[in-house]
Order: sequence, then structure tokens, then C-alpha cells
Amino acid sequence: MTRYGPQFGPDITFLGVPRCDLDDPETYADAEVVILGAPFDGGTSHRPGTRFGPMAIRMTDYLAHDGSRPSLALRTDGLVDLKVVDAGDVEMYSGEIEKALPALEAAVEKVARAGKIPVVLGGDHSIAYPDAKGVANVLGHGRISMLHFDAHADTGDIEFGSLWGHGQPMRRLIESGALRGDRFLQIGLRGYWPPPETLDWMAGQQMRSYEMTEIGQRGLEECLTEAFGIAMDECEGVFLSVDIDVCDPGHAPGTGTPEPGGISARQLLDSVRRICLELPVVGIDVVEVSPPYDHADITAALANRVVLEALSAIARRRQDARDGTSWDPRRPLLDGR
Amino acid sequence: MTRYGPQFGPDITFLGVPRCDLDDPETYADAEVVILGAPFDGGTSHRPGTRFGPMAIRMTDYLAHDGSRPSLALRTDGLVDLKVVDAGDVEMYSGEIEKALPALEAAVEKVARAGKIPVVLGGDHSIAYPDAKGVANVLGHGRISMLHFDAHADTGDIEFGSLWGHGQPMRRLIESGALRGDRFLQIGLRGYWPPPETLDWMAGQQMRSYEMTEIGQRGLEECLTEAFGIAMDECEGVFLSVDIDVCDPGHAPGTGTPEPGGISARQLLDSVRRICLELPVVGIDVVEVSPPYDHADITAALANRVVLEALSAIARRRQDARDGTSWDPRRPLLDGR
Amino acid sequence: MTRYGPQFGPDITFLGVPRCDLDDPETYADAEVVILGAPFDGGTSHRPGTRFGPMAIRMTDYLAHDGSRPSLALRTDGLVDLKVVDAGDVEMYSGEIEKALPALEAAVEKVARAGKIPVVLGGDHSIAYPDAKGVANVLGHGRISMLHFDAHADTGDIEFGSLWGHGQPMRRLIESGALRGDRFLQIGLRGYWPPPETLDWMAGQQMRSYEMTEIGQRGLEECLTEAFGIAMDECEGVFLSVDIDVCDPGHAPGTGTPEPGGISARQLLDSVRRICLELPVVGIDVVEVSPPYDHADITAALANRVVLEALSAIARRRQDARDGTSWDPRRPLLDGR
Amino acid sequence: MTRYGPQFGPDITFLGVPRCDLDDPETYADAEVVILGAPFDGGTSHRPGTRFGPMAIRMTDYLAHDGSRPSLALRTDGLVDLKVVDAGDVEMYSGEIEKALPALEAAVEKVARAGKIPVVLGGDHSIAYPDAKGVANVLGHGRISMLHFDAHADTGDIEFGSLWGHGQPMRRLIESGALRGDRFLQIGLRGYWPPPETLDWMAGQQMRSYEMTEIGQRGLEECLTEAFGIAMDECEGVFLSVDIDVCDPGHAPGTGTPEPGGISARQLLDSVRRICLELPVVGIDVVEVSPPYDHADITAALANRVVLEALSAIARRRQDARDGTSWDPRRPLLDGR
Amino acid sequence: MTRYGPQFGPDITFLGVPRCDLDDPETYADAEVVILGAPFDGGTSHRPGTRFGPMAIRMTDYLAHDGSRPSLALRTDGLVDLKVVDAGDVEMYSGEIEKALPALEAAVEKVARAGKIPVVLGGDHSIAYPDAKGVANVLGHGRISMLHFDAHADTGDIEFGSLWGHGQPMRRLIESGALRGDRFLQIGLRGYWPPPETLDWMAGQQMRSYEMTEIGQRGLEECLTEAFGIAMDECEGVFLSVDIDVCDPGHAPGTGTPEPGGISARQLLDSVRRICLELPVVGIDVVEVSPPYDHADITAALANRVVLEALSAIARRRQDARDGTSWDPRRPLLDGR
Amino acid sequence: MTRYGPQFGPDITFLGVPRCDLDDPETYADAEVVILGAPFDGGTSHRPGTRFGPMAIRMTDYLAHDGSRPSLALRTDGLVDLKVVDAGDVEMYSGEIEKALPALEAAVEKVARAGKIPVVLGGDHSIAYPDAKGVANVLGHGRISMLHFDAHADTGDIEFGSLWGHGQPMRRLIESGALRGDRFLQIGLRGYWPPPETLDWMAGQQMRSYEMTEIGQRGLEECLTEAFGIAMDECEGVFLSVDIDVCDPGHAPGTGTPEPGGISARQLLDSVRRICLELPVVGIDVVEVSPPYDHADITAALANRVVLEALSAIARRRQDARDGTSWDPRRPLLDGR
Repeated sequence: MTRYGPQFGPDITFLGVPRCDLDDPETYADAEVVILGAPFDGGTSHRPGTRFGPMAIRMTDYLAHDGSRPSLALRTDGLVDLKVVDAGDVEMYSGEIEKALPALEAAVEKVARAGKIPVVLGGDHSIAYPDAKGVANVLGHGRISMLHFDAHADTGDIEFGSLWGHGQPMRRLIESGALRGDRFLQIGLRGYWPPPETLDWMAGQQMRSYEMTEIGQRGLEECLTEAFGIAMDECEGVFLSVDIDVCDPGHAPGTGTPEPGGISARQLLDSVRRICLELPVVGIDVVEVSPPYDHADITAALANRVVLEALSAIARRRQDARDGTSWDPRRPLLDGR
Repeated sequence: MTRYGPQFGPDITFLGVPRCDLDDPETYADAEVVILGAPFDGGTSHRPGTRFGPMAIRMTDYLAHDGSRPSLALRTDGLVDLKVVDAGDVEMYSGEIEKALPALEAAVEKVARAGKIPVVLGGDHSIAYPDAKGVANVLGHGRISMLHFDAHADTGDIEFGSLWGHGQPMRRLIESGALRGDRFLQIGLRGYWPPPETLDWMAGQQMRSYEMTEIGQRGLEECLTEAFGIAMDECEGVFLSVDIDVCDPGHAPGTGTPEPGGISARQLLDSVRRICLELPVVGIDVVEVSPPYDHADITAALANRVVLEALSAIARRRQDARDGTSWDPRRPLLDGR
Repeated sequence: MTRYGPQFGPDITFLGVPRCDLDDPETYADAEVVILGAPFDGGTSHRPGTRFGPMAIRMTDYLAHDGSRPSLALRTDGLVDLKVVDAGDVEMYSGEIEKALPALEAAVEKVARAGKIPVVLGGDHSIAYPDAKGVANVLGHGRISMLHFDAHADTGDIEFGSLWGHGQPMRRLIESGALRGDRFLQIGLRGYWPPPETLDWMAGQQMRSYEMTEIGQRGLEECLTEAFGIAMDECEGVFLSVDIDVCDPGHAPGTGTPEPGGISARQLLDSVRRICLELPVVGIDVVEVSPPYDHADITAALANRVVLEALSAIARRRQDARDGTSWDPRRPLLDGR
Repeated sequence: MTRYGPQFGPDITFLGVPRCDLDDPETYADAEVVILGAPFDGGTSHRPGTRFGPMAIRMTDYLAHDGSRPSLALRTDGLVDLKVVDAGDVEMYSGEIEKALPALEAAVEKVARAGKIPVVLGGDHSIAYPDAKGVANVLGHGRISMLHFDAHADTGDIEFGSLWGHGQPMRRLIESGALRGDRFLQIGLRGYWPPPETLDWMAGQQMRSYEMTEIGQRGLEECLTEAFGIAMDECEGVFLSVDIDVCDPGHAPGTGTPEPGGISARQLLDSVRRICLELPVVGIDVVEVSPPYDHADITAALANRVVLEALSAIARRRQDARDGTSWDPRRPLLDGR
Repeated sequence: MTRYGPQFGPDITFLGVPRCDLDDPETYADAEVVILGAPFDGGTSHRPGTRFGPMAIRMTDYLAHDGSRPSLALRTDGLVDLKVVDAGDVEMYSGEIEKALPALEAAVEKVARAGKIPVVLGGDHSIAYPDAKGVANVLGHGRISMLHFDAHADTGDIEFGSLWGHGQPMRRLIESGALRGDRFLQIGLRGYWPPPETLDWMAGQQMRSYEMTEIGQRGLEECLTEAFGIAMDECEGVFLSVDIDVCDPGHAPGTGTPEPGGISARQLLDSVRRICLELPVVGIDVVEVSPPYDHADITAALANRVVLEALSAIARRRQDARDGTSWDPRRPLLDGR
Repeated sequence: MTRYGPQFGPDITFLGVPRCDLDDPETYADAEVVILGAPFDGGTSHRPGTRFGPMAIRMTDYLAHDGSRPSLALRTDGLVDLKVVDAGDVEMYSGEIEKALPALEAAVEKVARAGKIPVVLGGDHSIAYPDAKGVANVLGHGRISMLHFDAHADTGDIEFGSLWGHGQPMRRLIESGALRGDRFLQIGLRGYWPPPETLDWMAGQQMRSYEMTEIGQRGLEECLTEAFGIAMDECEGVFLSVDIDVCDPGHAPGTGTPEPGGISARQLLDSVRRICLELPVVGIDVVEVSPPYDHADITAALANRVVLEALSAIARRRQDARDGTSWDPRRPLLDGR
């Protein structure tokens, strides 16, 4: 049975939003979003530490932990308007990945089945398998597309003798049938991994991977627009998986496998905003924040803001849909007040 | 009575410029710029440490402390050409903000009254009130505009039960009448503060705040050009207040309230250069450098360069005015030598 | 009116003990100890950061935050056996020391008046004034002695133009009449402060200060035994004030005014244990933990253990009194189980 | 099948000793000691990072990596005199503890079966189970005693739902019959773990655990002497397991579960020396060095010196046995040269 | 006589490529590239530490040290396709620069004379003199141009009373006749050094230096294109010297003389790629990585990637030349697989 | 010609004592002690950074830089009572050790010739040669003994092909005849260097080296007493050379070649005090403080206190000699005031 609670440190919620208990549906009946912690780093191939990611992402903010964050840019309060609640951590022992991942999958699926958007705070990227599969189990295998921000494709086969780890979740998701390879959109890849045979497998699955060279040549905005088109073809929802190492190590040093030459923090926040404004996001994870390697908490702060940007934009999208309004990015901050 | 001297550590001056004594006008009679330290962090709402900002900004440079810094780009030596002197630190006890801020105001006013440009090294941003008010007391309330680089609007009302703190100086300046709300130009705002009621107050004051979304859409250059037009309408001078957290935490980790998604160090330096080249700057402060959270001194180094960039550009502007010349940013470094 | 709550970060309690509300006496009616946070660093003369001390001391432990800590050595569970509760932080704005200290005094006094032992987590050492005075207000001025572990005497007069700060609380306590100078026992002093005139004042008050040289010559145990005798002469209770900088900086780097040559962590823990076992402790504070200067959280961990050691020993003393038993330090861990 | 090689980073040996290949007995036929790396942190209950322990312990020394270290004190060269070789790392995937530990056990057993002393560089303390059991499998279950330096008893039962982890190896060793509970000597315990029921189990096993209070009262030397007597009663060899957290966090900050109040680095080195001089050591592990939490590499340096001290003393013991000599700790360094 | 081997730490090669012995030509007969370490920081004018640069650049990667790195973007494996080997470190004692630099020059010349491309891992920038001169000694003085990425011109005359240091190599190269001043292309200069008289000397040599202002105005791509034209006029080869401080300190904090306002890591990698794809590179050095000032190894990781980017692009260029193909930067990653 | 001034950073003096100019004898005519900085790390065999030692040792104190430090324990103000002045740094370029060391020797000799005690702030330990030789040049070769605190003997012969470096100064001093081998007292040696042949050379010189084992067995006090007897036999003065790495790395992490198992900070301070109280000290150096590897400035603070302890004790000794008094270490701090 899946157990919940604070695996490390005190029992806190994301910026002070109300706690819920996954075993008591009334505690999240009104919520549109449920936050889950996945304090797991047993799947990482190099620097560990992401087990402390959920705590760091929940805590790292200089403002009061009052469960409210009105966005200057989007003119919504994602935490309040979406009635965000936090279910705490799924207990995931880093030494036993084959027990830990199913426990998370069960928790995510429970959230999705209740009609809520799960937002999972990692943890290393091996959790993307239970995160996206847990949602697909509810919405239908093959019915959701993946928008995957990362320096790495995470499509490895067996590593360290195991099928499970932070370099392999995307392959496992496609192999399981939960997600279609041709609705897999990857943004920010670069560097020297995976090797050609893995790239061939990816091509065979018709994945669409935007390496930094293409992004540099065509512009991130154009790449995203193209990717959005693919993502919404025959799919009803989008899972957004943000590996913080998609950013340059200068912007996100606190991570396990930093690859120089990434996008900036500003670009990541803007991209997350666009996705959540323009597409029907059904699940999110933010992964690979490793506090022992962070400095002045800048990586944790960035991940915290990725979560808030996503929630704010979802709130904006829902409000605009309700009100028939449309958000204008060029409108000055104080205009119309 | 206001006392001066090194509040922390040894008695040094900014990169070795001559010392002056504010109580002895002859010591700064020839100077065009007087540097003041404001080693105060009693007003910060989160991570402290800016009390060591003046020492760090004065010291952090790998070149000799010889009081000379010829700018490659601007072909002037801001320290020498402007005869910069350093008056040391105003004694500001962090535990008593209501005594500390007036002491600084008196010192800044004394510099301004002598016809010099005060350059104040913070310290947290609560010092912007005495800094800008000290100048306005001399040049006339309502006669100078504010160019304010920051992630935060700093227009809060009462916080922690006090009117005074680093989240409130801009409100206090406007309320005091020292500065006009409609000549308040803010660059780089982002994130989740202040709340809507404060934004409404700002709108009511006709402040002009460029949030990062607008800057991203229109471009920083265009926003600055527009801001310059507003700033010089019915005002004779500009106060430049640079909160180092306007930069992305990747470029400026050593600060108290880091907000991801900011401008780059290069953009900040270019903006400061343009302001000091194109506008009549009458006072400057550089604030929120917190050495305990810095790494490899990169934030202190950036703040040091913000000061030098400003001084170099002011020197360039004055020299061009004297000589009838004009600086060309596209001219190669070695051209014409 | 004094306000309580988490001033920085999430709302947590010391290692998960139950929360109480100082305004609701029922919430701590059963408790023997009430923990208070004093997140204040406005009184520090050098490196700040102790505002984050309460959060760090509450959190820094690798064990579960379950409100239970059975001591191997003392065979008690201080948190459970004493029914420890945590009232959260007293709101103390670092910029206004003259408002902050009385707010803390009121809270401490309320705890003492309810017959509970207040344990205050600092914060800088300026809080010792409200801490000890708050207790003395209840038990009687001149009726409690002070056992003060510190590298510094903290008996300064006016500093930075203020009567209040972390170098002065002991003088203010004696001047106020709350504590008798001749019942003031200081352990661990060393270095180059205060100056001779202050030492003369201390001698005039008949304070008893054990400088490290005397401790090295006579042994810490002998000095403590002598001090205990003085402390209990005409006094009914002891206030224990532990400045973490009594330890050598190698054992406690995360502090504001580190003075080399201090006692070891082991010596501090053993001394705290003896005091709480042998004397009637009526109040405690643990101060000067500055997380920004800590490494690998070792200073915060030490402070956490100082609190636990004190609570375990108080529990042991009370249990021995009830049961007529006596604790034997030479008894092997597993003996008698 | 157990695979060997550098799991993280370059393929290096301990201070440059020759490499051996466990699958090729000729490569270590002449050696008396074989070093193994166990780069595993899947069993840690709190701060991870010990996967990088083997690399850090092998590398951290300011002297040349030349495979020679003549001890000043012991007048032997442990690396050369014992013909130490390094077999590299056993591949241990942190996510699958139940595969990783048996792989290590097989490797240790192979070394022991060849008549060599295995020296295992951890890794978290869960490796003590395969380390000691691998040796006992060869020398006989119940035939070797354990000398265990640690802040923690590591005798937990199920944790995080698993029988395997760094808090449980000692219980598993006793339960498996590999080691006798009444030949289990623990030095340096302290703090608040394990709980009473676990202590009861330990007492039931007739373990002998020296908590820091007893060590402080009786002296470490006397405790060791007593422990040596127990260890050699009906046992032919001693396994030495050194958890670096037996030292105070001031001396060993780079570890996962630091417990204040430990012994000093000097005391640990002296104790290891005495054990290896006076007892027949048949296996060693040095564990819980976590480089991400280390500072200036002082913890890794200490662990490196623990290994060298052990090897030097074993060499001294063997040389004295051969030559009929006896080492005199009071002899001056240059005496007799 | 020049000696080779690991000057600090273990004897490792760049990401596991085969070792060669410069004194045994057969060991590098098949290679197209030979890597050399220059562990020297005796020439630095401020923060030292680059002596550990070669070790850090060789080691810092999260992937296996297997001597293979297939580039996602360039579809080549620079290490394998170019048969890269590593000759280890040239012994360079930091205290004797006048012995150290000639030793390096001899080694570089030996590599060049064998027809291989030397890639030198610094060390401080004083090594650029022996690096480029060693190559020019073979290819002809005045026959190779220099592409120099740096915040600083490194054209100082005498400093600290010495002709040799990290601020002077470019002047010495031109004065020696090894390189022509008018084929010296500098990218990324900024800040406040060198002084005007040095700039005059540079102008007199007809150097072409792109200061950041010009780069900002014209764009880095256009500047590079112009520089390429100059570089290839009457020269047969290009030496690429990359001082990591050309990047902004946010992207490269671990360096000795950080100058805010530099290019991003992405820009540096793209520029290095273009140079190695479009020009005949005959030698490379990557310098000024100072690990003691690095954080989370991000500067070392960047330097490692600069080397790999260069090698990948050289391999791509050679393969395209052989196959008559042409690399298309806009081609999607998985296209054509 | 030897030049003086601040080689790195601002021009400061030790804790604010008056500056003097070595070329102007009047500026130090009244002083009994002259401080010199030796910002040199070209001689270090491993981690550099001691070039910043003089600045760090001068600055690192939380008290005001007012040139006064009344010692609690010794009841003197070393800085004031001895009229200490600071001559600034000798310019020592780390790349040219053979120029740097003679420049320092000349400066030290000048101070000694004026009858003052030179106190040299290192810098790496290669400076001990010019430091002690500079004094012996004045007082007579063979007329002063050496009290040398260190983990290392520093008696190496040629290293890295050079006679000069931080592992060799003691050999050079003896070989030069400046100091007698049989008046060389070494305290704190340990570890694995130097090799036996060097130890044989040392024995041949009749050096007396107290390794930590002997110190542990006999006690530091007894060893010192014995050493004092040797030191004063046929010698008129003592040079005190303190390598901060004599302390355990837990107490002094910021150094280049940390060797675990050293003495505590308290032991070092007490030893320095005894030496300066009981022996006629004629020169001092404090070396091997490397700020890049320090944490929270604890190593620099310790070195600062070593200097102050020495100066305070010299002042005490001189005052007791003048007054016929005698200092009692058991006298309580406030006794007799």
C-alpha cells in the first residue's frame, strides 16, 4: 500500500497551500490541482540529491508561506484560483526503485482519476514513467502527448543492469504503450548522449526532438509552435515534464547531470507559460533539482517558479475560457488597473 | 550627528580612489562624484548580508586598487576624469532603521548640496528612500525622476509592522512628495509581489513599470527609450537605483530575494551605460548585494562594474558635451588609435 | 500586541512536536516546556543570519520529525516525557530592535507565568535580555542565576549608538535588576573583548567569568562545580544561555563572531547535560546560529542537539526525583535492558 | 555476474597502487591486501552522496599518486610492504539494493578466499553486511568479531519498508549467523537512535556498545582494551568497520547523518592504529564519506588516512611478528636513524 | 629535459581516451589529436587554482570515461573519429615560470611536428605563448593566425617585474615573430584593462579586437565571419585559444579574473563549433579554469564541452571534406536516421 | 630593489595598526614589531591560494579595525603596548620564486637590523627561508633556534626540479648555515612525508622532531618544555614559524596540504602563548592560510589570533620583565580588578 507523508524533514506543503490526504477524497474534492512529492534519487546515474528536491521546491521562496501567489504577468493567483492542495510525499525508498515507482504511479493515478491535475515534484527523472503513465491510465493510453524539456532524451535501454533509472523513463513510457512515440516532443537536447543506436530507436518511434542547434537556428518560439501542432494532433491532453537541466548550468547548477549550453531561466519560464496557456495540460512534473549541488538556492527557486508559472498560466487559461477574454503579453503591468 | 567611517572591516575606498571627509568640504571640492557606503541590512525581509555590500563592492576587482579604471568601451577613466572620492560608510546600525535612514539622508543631501553626484553603495533597498530624498531635498521635490531597476516594485505599505524596509522605499518617496509617481520608471519587475491592491495604488500614482513580459515582447531597448522620454518630461535630473536582483539569479546569486527570470549582466551593464550617457544622472545607488550568499564573488564583481559603467558613461557624456563629440558604439576597439 | 507564526519559511515545529498557540492556554496546559522562535538578527555587530536560526535549529536532524527523541545516554525521551510544544516564532523585525525585544519578553513571560520552561531559539544574543527578564518577571527579580556559555561577556554599554544589541544583554539584565551580577556565571570567555573598562564594571558587579585559560588550567568540570555552588546560593532557579560561539569555530563555524580556541562540541553537550541534571533550570536560550555561514549544517545540528540534551536531562532529573533514582554516567548503554 | 570497473569518473586506484582484476587471480597473487570500491548510496536514510566516496577516498591526498606511503610514526610503508592492489569498483546501482549488496558480497568473498584482506571503500553503511559476511563466509560464520566505529548502532529492523539499508546491516549480520552478537563491539554511539525496542534487541544479542558517555567517563583507551578482550575470545579474526560519522561533525562534515559530540580525528586514527597493531584484522571497510557535503575535502582526507593508518599498522604488526620486534609509541621520530 | 606525468592527483586521460607517451612516437602515430595538460598557475595575477584545471577538465563529465563521445548535433564522435590520445601533464612548477613555459613549448612542438593537433588544457593563460609558438615553430612563424576568446587582451608588457605571466602572452607571441599582429583576432574583450598605452601598441600591431560593445551592436555571428576572413588571409592555419573568462561569470565563475558582461556558454560553444568547422585549426588551448572558485563544477564542465565541441567539429569538417558532404545546422536531430 | 605595497586588493594594515614605510626608518622607529605581508604561493606543492593569506589574516576579525586588542587572558594590548606597525606586502610574484624569496629576505633583514621583531604573514611555507635567514643575518648565523609548528618537516631536497618550495625551507636554512640543525625543534609532524632518506638526513643534522604519536604519549606540555631547553642552549633567540596545518583540518580547513590528526586550535594558541611568554622570540611567521579553501573564514581567524596571541604574550613578557611581575594562568578573569 502506498504511504504518504514527509519522507525527509518537516511536514510542509508547497508555499503553504492546504494539505490534503490522498486516502480521503473530501480533502481534495474542491481542488483543481494536487501536488505530490517524489523524494527519490535512486535512479540517478551520477550526482544524487534529488531526494531533497520536493522539500526544496516547496520551501524556496522569500515570500510568506501563505498559499497565495498573485502573478504580476498573468493577473491570476494560481494557488488560490485553482484551489491547489498538497498531498505530501509518496514514500519512495531510493534503494528499491522497483517498489518506489509503482507507489508513485498509484498516487498519480488516484489524483488523475479524481479529475485533478497532478503536479509532481521530483526526484530524479525516473519518476516521469509513473507520472505520465499514472495520468494515461486514466485518460487513455495513447491519448496524451508529452512535452519534455531536457538536455537529455532519457530514452536509454538497460543501464547499470536495470530497466529503470533517470535515463530511461521515456523509452519505458513508449514501450508500455502509455504514450505514443510520435506524440513525444523533446525540447533542449544537446551534448553527447544518447548514442546513435538509441537515436535510431527514437527515430523509429517517430519522436520529435529539438536539439539546441535547431532551436538556435529556428528560434525557440517557432519550434514550440510546431511542437504544439504535433502534440494536439489526435491527443486530448499534454503532460509537461520539466527537467531543470534543460537550462544552462549557470542558471541551474543544482542538478545531477549538468550539460553546458542550455536555455536560460527566462526562456524556460516563458515556454512553460505558453504551454499552459495554449494547451490542455493534464499533468506536470518538475525534476532533477539536487539541493546539495545548488548555490544560494537558485536552482530550487527556479523550479519553484516553474511550478508557479505553470499554475498561473493554467488558471489564466481557465479564466479566459470562462470569461471569453484573452491575455495580452504586451499589456503594461499597471495598464487597466 | 551623522558619523562616518568603516563600519565593518578595514577602512578602504572604492578601488583606491582618494578618501574624503564629509565634514571637511575641501576634501571633495574638486570631485564630481562622492561615494558613500550604506552598510545596512536591517530592512531586508528575507536573507540578510547586504551590510557587507559596501565593502564587497569597493574591493571586488582583480586589478590594482589604484583609483584608475580606463574603460575599453567608452575611452574614458571614470574614476580619474570625474575625480571620484570616497567618504566611507555612514554609520547605520541595522537594528534601528529609523535612526539609520535619516543619517544616510543627511549625508547624501550634503553631497548633493555641494553639487556632487552621490553614489551610494548598499545595503538593502530601504536606503533608496534617503538616497533619492537626499538629492531631491537639494534639487527640488518633484524635480527628479527615478529609473529603478529591480525584480520588485518596492512599493509596499506597512510590513512587519513598520513603514520602513526594503520593500517600501518607493512608496515612501512618492508619499513624501520627494519624487513624482508619474516620473517613476521601473524596469525588470516579475514574479508574485506586490499583491493587486499595491499594484492598484501604483497605477493610481501613474507609475510606469516594465514587467519582464513586456520587456520580452518589446525589447529592452525600446522600453528604455520610452522610459527616457517620460523621465525627462518636466524633470531636470534622474536618480538611478539599481537593485542587483534585477538580474537573473544565475548572474547575481548573492542577493536577498532572488527572483528567477531576470535580465542578464550584459543587459544591465548596457542599460546603465545608456542611461548615464543619455540622461542627466544626479544620484545613484547600487543595492542588495549580499556577500554571504555570493559565489566566487560574482555578484559583488557585477555591482562593482555597474558603478564603473555608470561613472565611465557620465564621464563620457560630460567629455562629449565639452568637446562636441559623440560616442559611437560600433567603433572597433582599436580604431583611431 | 505580540504576534506569532513562522516569520521565515514554512510553519514548522521543533522536530515535529505539537504546535501550541500562546493566546490559547489550553494548547499548552499539559506541557512542561514551550519552545519559542526568535528570528532576529538586528542586534548583531558583525555577520548576520541568525534570523534563520530558529528554522535551522527546528529542522536540522536526519531523523523523522515525529516529536520523539529517546536519548541513548539518559534513557529518557525529552520531547515526549516533558510534553514539549512549540509556539512558533515571535514576530521580530530585525530593523526595529526596540519593538522586537519587548515582544519577545512578553511571550517568554507568558510561558513562564504558565509555569512552563521557555526554550527560546535565537536569533542573536540580544534576545537574552527579554529571555531572562521574561522569566525573572515571574520568578522574581534577583531570584534566578545565569549560566552563560559564550566566547564573549556581552556586557557592553552603548554600541553603534544603541543600548540594545548582541554585545550588551548581560549588562542590561543586571542594570535592570532582573538578575544579580554576583549570580552571573560565564563559561568560555576568550579573545580581545570587552575592553578593560567593561571588565572593571563586571568586576564591580561581582560577576564570575571563567576565561578559557582558567578552564584549561583547572578543567571544565571543576569550574562548573564551583559555578554551580555560586549559582544556587540564594537563587531558586537557573537560566541557561548558550551562545553557540562558545565552541571552537571548527565545531561551530556558522556563527556571527567566531573566536578561535573554544571548547569542543562534546564538552558543550556534556556541560549542558550536567547543568540540567544538577540544577533547577527555569529557562533556556540557544543563540547565534547563523545558517548562511554554516557548512553541511553542522552548527545547526549542534544547536539542535544542545536543545535535546537539555530537555533529555531535565526529563531525567524530574524522573529521578519522582522515582528516587539516580543516573549513572558509567553504566554501559545496554546494561540492565 | 559481478562486474568491476570505475562506476563514476576515471579509472583510478587508491593512491596509485597497482590495479588488479578480480577475475584474474594472478594479478593479486602476491598482494596481502585488495582494495574494493563500493560506490553505493541507495541505502542511506538521509543525505546521499557516498556513491562518490570510493573516488574521493582514493584521490584525496596532496602527495604523489605513486603507490607508496611510508608512515612517519610506524616506520613502514603500508602500501608497499603489504603489496596492496586495487580491484576497482564493484558495479552497484543505487536504485537496486537487493542486487547491489550480493554483488559486493561475492567480490569480498573472492578476496577473502584468496587469503587477502579486503579493504572496502564505501559507500553507505549498508555495505557492512556484504563486507563482513563475505569474509565470514570464508573464515567461518561466528569466527570473526566486529569492531564497529560509529555514531549509530545500525541495528534497525525494517525501515522504509525494506530490510536493507544503512541503518540495519549489523542486525542482518547477526541474524544471518555470520557474526555473533556477543562479539560485536561498538564504539562511539550517541544521540537519539535507535529506539528502546531496538536497544532491547541488542541487549538480547549481548552486543557491547560503548556510548560516548561511557567513553568520556572511562577513557577511550580503557574501553578499547576491554573491547579487545571480548573480541578475541573464541574468535580468530576481527572485522573493522569505520563509519566516518563516529567523528564529530567538525572533523567529518561530509557525511549523511552527522551526530554532534563525536570523537576527534586524532582519536579515530589512534584507535585504528591500535586495533590493527594489536588484533588480527581480516577485513576493513570505511564508509559514509559523502563528498557533496564535504568542505575542502577534509572528510575524504580523513578517510584516506584511516585506510593508510590501518594498512601501516597491519604492516607493522606483521613485520614485528616476523622480526620479533615491538613498536614503541614514545620513541622520537628521528631516534635510531 | 621535459618530463610528463600527472603533476597533481591520479594519472588519468581526457574522458578515458588512450594514453600516449610523447617520447614514444608509436603511441600516437595513428592519432590526429594529442591532448596535453599544463597544470600551471604561476603566471596568474589574481586568483590562482588553474593548476588543477587539466585534472578538472579531463574528469568533469557525468558520462562514462570510455573514450567515446558521439555528438548529437554534429553526428560524429570526436574522440574516436580523430583517434584522440592524451600525453598527460607536462611538469610545470608554478614557482618557476621561466622553466615551465619552455618545457611546454617543447612538448607542443613535438606534437605539431608529428603532424598532430595539440590540444592543451590549462593552466593560466601564460601558456598561450608556448602553445602557439610551439605550433608556429613547425608550421612557420607568421603562417598561423590566432583566434583568441577572452575578456582580456593579454598584451601587457612587464608586470610584477616579469615579462612572463597570464596578462602578456599575446604580446610576447607577436614580439617573438611567431604570430603576426595583423592576424590576431580577439573576441569578447571588455572592462578596464589594458590601459590606453597598451591599446596603442595593439593598434600599432594592427590587431583586430572585438570588444563586447561592437559584438552587441553587430552580432557575434557577423563579427566572427569578418574575423574568419582576416584570419585566413595569407595564413594556412588557425590557433584557437579559449580563455573561459570570455563567458559571463554567471556561466563560468571558476576562473581567476572574472569580468562581468561576457558571452553565454551557448554562444561560446557555437563559436568554437563554427571555427572548427570552417577553418583549418592547427592547435587549441582552453585556459583559466580555476576549480577552487568553481561551483558544482559548472566551469570545468563548460571547458570539457569546449574541448569536445572543437574535436567534434574538426572531425565533422574532415569527414565532410572526405565525403563531399555538408553539415546542416537546421536539420532535426532524428532526421534521416 | 624590493618594492612594498598591497599586491592584492586594498592597502590595509593588520587590524588597523599604523602603516610604516620600510624605506623610511622614522616611520617605525618607535615600534617593537613590524608586520610584513608575503603574498606568495608559487612554492606550494598542491592547493594554492596562500597569496591571499596576508590580506585574510589582516582583515579577519569581527571587531573594529582600530589597532587595539586588549587580551582578556594576558591583560595586555599587544598591538598598542608593542607599538606594532605594518609595512604592507613585499611584492612577490608567484611565478618567480628565485626573485621573490630574496626580496622578502631583504625586507625581513631590514626590520631585524632596526632592532624590531618581524612578523611575516604568509604565503606558503617557502617563505620561512627568507624569514629566518633575514633575522639570522642580523643576530648571527647559528645564534637563533627554530620552533617550528607543522604537520610536515619541510626538509625536502629538490622537488619539481627546484631547490625552492614550501617543502624545503628548513633544509635550505640548515644547509645555508643560518640555523643549526640541532637547534631545530619541530612540533606536530605526522602522516607520510618526508620519506626515510630525508628523515635520515634530518637525524644526521640532529634535528628534534616531535611527531604526533610522541606528543600524544607524553603530552604537548612536556614536549614543549623539553624543546624549550634545547632551544635556549647556546642560542640567544627563537624564531617561531607556525604552519597553520599543524592543526587538524577540522580546525584549519583553509590550507594547501591538510593532514588529518593534528592539534586543536586551543592547543596551538596555548603553545604560541607559552613560547612567547617564556622564550626570547626574535621573529615570527604564520603561513599556509589558503582562503579559497577556507570556510566561514575560520582558518584566517585562527591565524589572526595566532598573531595576536604571540604579540600579547611578548608584550606580557616584556612588561613582567620591566615590572618584576609574573603572569598567573589560574587567576580568574575579573580577579584583582
